[in-house]
Amino acid sequence: MRIIGSISDIRAIVRAQKKLGKTIGLVPTMGYLHKGHISLVEASVRENDYTIISIFVNPTQFGPNEDYVKYPRNMQKDSQLAEEAGVDVVFAPEAKEIYLDGFKTYVNVEGITKILCGKTRPGHFKGVATIVNKLFNIIEPDKAYFGQKDAQQVAVIKRMAADLNINIEIVACPIVREHDGLAMSSRNTYLSPDERKAALVLSRSLFEAGEMIGSGERRKGIILAQILKNLNCEKLANIEYVDILNADTMGEIKKIEGKVLIALAVKFGTTRLIDNIILEV
Amino acid sequence: MRIIGSISDIRAIVRAQKKLGKTIGLVPTMGYLHKGHISLVEASVRENDYTIISIFVNPTQFGPNEDYVKYPRNMQKDSQLAEEAGVDVVFAPEAKEIYLDGFKTYVNVEGITKILCGKTRPGHFKGVATIVNKLFNIIEPDKAYFGQKDAQQVAVIKRMAADLNINIEIVACPIVREHDGLAMSSRNTYLSPDERKAALVLSRSLFEAGEMIGSGERRKGIILAQILKNLNCEKLANIEYVDILNADTMGEIKKIEGKVLIALAVKFGTTRLIDNIILEV
Repeated sequence: MRIIGSISDIRAIVRAQKKLGKTIGLVPTMGYLHKGHISLVEASVRENDYTIISIFVNPTQFGPNEDYVKYPRNMQKDSQLAEEAGVDVVFAPEAKEIYLDGFKTYVNVEGITKILCGKTRPGHFKGVATIVNKLFNIIEPDKAYFGQKDAQQVAVIKRMAADLNINIEIVACPIVREHDGLAMSSRNTYLSPDERKAALVLSRSLFEAGEMIGSGERRKGIILAQILKNLNCEKLANIEYVDILNADTMGEIKKIEGKVLIALAVKFGTTRLIDNIILEV
Repeated sequence: MRIIGSISDIRAIVRAQKKLGKTIGLVPTMGYLHKGHISLVEASVRENDYTIISIFVNPTQFGPNEDYVKYPRNMQKDSQLAEEAGVDVVFAPEAKEIYLDGFKTYVNVEGITKILCGKTRPGHFKGVATIVNKLFNIIEPDKAYFGQKDAQQVAVIKRMAADLNINIEIVACPIVREHDGLAMSSRNTYLSPDERKAALVLSRSLFEAGEMIGSGERRKGIILAQILKNLNCEKLANIEYVDILNADTMGEIKKIEGKVLIALAVKFGTTRLIDNIILEV
């Protein structure tokens, strides 16, 4: 497995593989890899001849008061995990390789980026869409893999790909959870032992909502109220949002029907976690 | 020569040509072709194995009070001119093929789109960058050709290509002029005979400015004043802007040095014309 920092080098590698008729899978990440990321790599290795993982903590998707500087990084461990999972090349550029002097161009998916995480993280999805667009242009993969934990990110990327005629298949992979239910996230490392324990309220609330819907409950207000009740019982939890939406369009729904996304964001101390479930009703 | 309306058809054609090892040149246009467009086609035919011209009057780059509906169209004549110039395929999609229901994604080059034409045509360059980005993703050409008459458009596209790592060479071709100096434009067809005559003041003013600089004048204010004096002498001319900028960055300059762009926009009746010259000092 090779680790590449330059755009021209990774392009040469991709060109050579394509000349051999190989298909390319891309797994864009910010590193500090966990089993969620590895599940994306495994899907890519299964479905493509050649798998590239990008590891780049993208400054433009962090707000001024967010955790860009302290975001966890461990290149050595990441390389080892990537190699074990079957990655062919790690693309790990420096920020100055990605953002030229005088950089001024952004890709923005309007509307869909104003809700949920977009409300409290203005500019976040503009940064995400832009870096993913750039990685797509650099690597030109056949397929690209994203985790469903970032449900809104998946919707933004799919919308961008459709709107800009990007000829890459966007694959969303299921959330991978710890044995006790906590959704895998690089930010889980920030949690104190008490917060780590408290954070279980997220998946517990979502699973209970899923059970209520499974038992026939179709009133959105009742489901939301039950989730909020659960979250409010947990003293360390600071709710940012809970919402129930159409899972494909991220549009508002009045009652529980079709493909439904229940998504939430909650802070534990200074650590902001997100989680969600998707249900077919 | 074929005329193609569907994205999947044009993609199949490009794929087949690339499989044969052919290079692809793209000339994006809004049709109503004149010799300026044809010079772009000729450059593409010279430098590529296969040339595609797109003809698409792009609604998202017109403001609500602009000339989208009345913009001149003549597909039959365009096809004939394109074929004579050596075009292999005309890509002429309907608007609904290009803009899906729920379209929400825009590419925006910030800063550079706020000056000159961007001031009076808010959203124009966002529409331009977005459609060109889409055409690039649909056709995936090796090179793409743009007319230097739209100097700011060229700067926006070059900036977008660099910023988003678009692996396509952007080629700017010189302005083509009528025998009397008027820059070729599809919008010249709007001009009444009197306006057509009056419009010569544009190129005349620019050429005189070029002569002043050629004779050693380096004071921006003096050059601008002379151009404005000439334009103001023409009763039918309504000045929108005249400016002298760095030709590469579109940044402000204090004195005439380096690669300099003199650009202007002037209305004659309801017809808005632009023109410019680039000088190396």
